[in-house]
Amino acid sequence: MSIRRIDVGPRMTDIVIHNNTVYLAGQVGAPGESVTVQTQSVLDQIDAALAKAGTDKTKILQAIIWLADMSTFAEMNAVWDKWVPQGHTPARATGEAKLATPAHKVEIIITAAI
Amino acid sequence: MSIRRIDVGPRMTDIVIHNNTVYLAGQVGAPGESVTVQTQSVLDQIDAALAKAGTDKTKILQAIIWLADMSTFAEMNAVWDKWVPQGHTPARATGEAKLATPAHKVEIIITAAI
Amino acid sequence: MSIRRIDVGPRMTDIVIHNNTVYLAGQVGAPGESVTVQTQSVLDQIDAALAKAGTDKTKILQAIIWLADMSTFAEMNAVWDKWVPQGHTPARATGEAKLATPAHKVEIIITAAI
Repeated sequence: MSIRRIDVGPRMTDIVIHNNTVYLAGQVGAPGESVTVQTQSVLDQIDAALAKAGTDKTKILQAIIWLADMSTFAEMNAVWDKWVPQGHTPARATGEAKLATPAHKVEIIITAAI
Repeated sequence: MSIRRIDVGPRMTDIVIHNNTVYLAGQVGAPGESVTVQTQSVLDQIDAALAKAGTDKTKILQAIIWLADMSTFAEMNAVWDKWVPQGHTPARATGEAKLATPAHKVEIIITAAI
Repeated sequence: MSIRRIDVGPRMTDIVIHNNTVYLAGQVGAPGESVTVQTQSVLDQIDAALAKAGTDKTKILQAIIWLADMSTFAEMNAVWDKWVPQGHTPARATGEAKLATPAHKVEIIITAAI
């Protein structure tokens, strides 16, 4: 069964497709901005990556969310709740983990169906 | 290929099935109780969710375990070891991550086969 | 659809195969050694586990990397960048998480295609 890779970089690939399932690299965005702005940036990137893969946010299977500081949980959720499609919400888990740089406050790892 | 969602909430879904694979939301339970009690609660919830999906703990593929405090690793493992079915243990990884509230000490993210 | 397990232990299994997808247990290695040495040890173990599963590093779908201390990100990446096959890099995410013991500095969780 073949593997399709989109936006291939030397260290990682942004979008990997196998067996009707899409694996996205951990998405981060808008470093240094507020959790609200970073979360919206991450979700916009997820929408764009899923579109390149030929799917969309109604087909997300699992979302793993890492917050650099769990005290921002409600702030992240406010943006998430407006974005996530009702009736098609994914399995989700959120844990606190420092990210690649202190300027990064939220990272989301998506698995979706095609 | 169709996606089946069970126990759909506005923020996340507890059970998502696609391609003969089940993705569970991160399971937490018995906030404020000991790691022993919380781990048992989490494993009971996993059993219940897998049953709703039409599968069981002999078909778990991967378990990601987050402990709020890694010093409770042995306490969590004592409960896990009694529960996990011999001959059918999953791939597993355990890392320390603060969870949604300080009252939550253990969270487990399950991927299983149907 | 059948599940195949390789190197089955009482607590976890090192390699689980289902639906043309391989799930590896979180790989750690060379406890107490430098991040450079531990990362190389982890990557060597991943190569060995993928070979047992009948696949190789050109077919990795997703890599989740946990570092006990994110200040070692560049040191881990230097080893990763030499190992990862160009044109076949996986989706990847890296977060900071303390591991099972303080002697463990890096853990990598792999999902791959057969």
